[in-house]
Amino acid sequence: MPEPELFETLYAQRAIRRFKPDPVPKEILERIIEAATHAPSGGNRQPWAFVVVTDPAKKERIAEWYHEGWVGMYASDPNRPRNAVYRSAEYLAEHMAETPVLIFPCIAAGGGRRPSFQTGSSIYPAAQNLMLAATALGIGTVITTFHMRREGEVKELLGIPDDYVTACMIAMGYPAEGERFGGAGRRPASEVTYYESWGG
Amino acid sequence: MPEPELFETLYAQRAIRRFKPDPVPKEILERIIEAATHAPSGGNRQPWAFVVVTDPAKKERIAEWYHEGWVGMYASDPNRPRNAVYRSAEYLAEHMAETPVLIFPCIAAGGGRRPSFQTGSSIYPAAQNLMLAATALGIGTVITTFHMRREGEVKELLGIPDDYVTACMIAMGYPAEGERFGGAGRRPASEVTYYESWGG
Repeated sequence: MPEPELFETLYAQRAIRRFKPDPVPKEILERIIEAATHAPSGGNRQPWAFVVVTDPAKKERIAEWYHEGWVGMYASDPNRPRNAVYRSAEYLAEHMAETPVLIFPCIAAGGGRRPSFQTGSSIYPAAQNLMLAATALGIGTVITTFHMRREGEVKELLGIPDDYVTACMIAMGYPAEGERFGGAGRRPASEVTYYESWGG
Repeated sequence: MPEPELFETLYAQRAIRRFKPDPVPKEILERIIEAATHAPSGGNRQPWAFVVVTDPAKKERIAEWYHEGWVGMYASDPNRPRNAVYRSAEYLAEHMAETPVLIFPCIAAGGGRRPSFQTGSSIYPAAQNLMLAATALGIGTVITTFHMRREGEVKELLGIPDDYVTACMIAMGYPAEGERFGGAGRRPASEVTYYESWGG
């Protein structure tokens, strides 16, 4: 099988939220996480860890907390959009327990403090590598943060130590029938690119 | 020219901090930034903008502030490492003005508040796409945050509005003689991967 190309994969990535029940083989997960660890991090400190959850009972608990976060932060917002992204996200919130794999990229936070905005520069590139590697291998992913309201419970359930925080939750699996890669709608880059100064 | 492969590019990426003086053609910059805009963002809101700086006078100012940040946050730390990464970062801090291109990925922050840690999930994946696309095209990059101490001045110089913040600064150019892609040292993924719970 030929290796997938970089630009093809960058353009193929889109949020996939409906999955087949098939498990993702462990050797595939290892390859995906190894790709994640090749991302940059400040001072090459590699402050990350990746917690992979496939256990049905654990996924069930996380799914409850996730749904609560979804309702509290999004579904109850009177100004929420009612578009295809919303409906797809709603489907995921109601079926999270059926997702084959949940991965929590974690970062060492130091002293239990909430890390700063720019600390994310040492973990979200790794999360993106992880999703790109999955995409290249035909595995759908979506990055979410609706578990954050219940992050304490999630960390306790998974035994994540006090000095680490979860950066996000990546739901993952082979795309369900009818899901597709590519074609994610984006504004033209020219509208968000400025030369030399804002507006330029 | 055959398209570069995804995994090859993920493994080729490493911090490049010494550049040839050659400019990066505008059509290449456009392709790189378009790749960035295909990254995921919360609710597909695409809250980003990219400010590209090549103007020598502006780079000179930014280089001064960057050097100040470097000294204050790193070079003056008595526990700093004295390894190859340090020396390479020191070189960059002293030669930033000569870097052909500086790109500031910015994110809408809302009300001038400092965005939260997890807000980074909507901008750093785009920064990573940008760096991967550059790598695939033979252009070296390094992601840095030492300008943050002087972010207010940087924003003023570049006309970045109050309701946006810079997520990082990406220095970019064709690698100088002796610089190479690939071979970035990383701990084995197996040491940072846990199944079902921490330590598992």
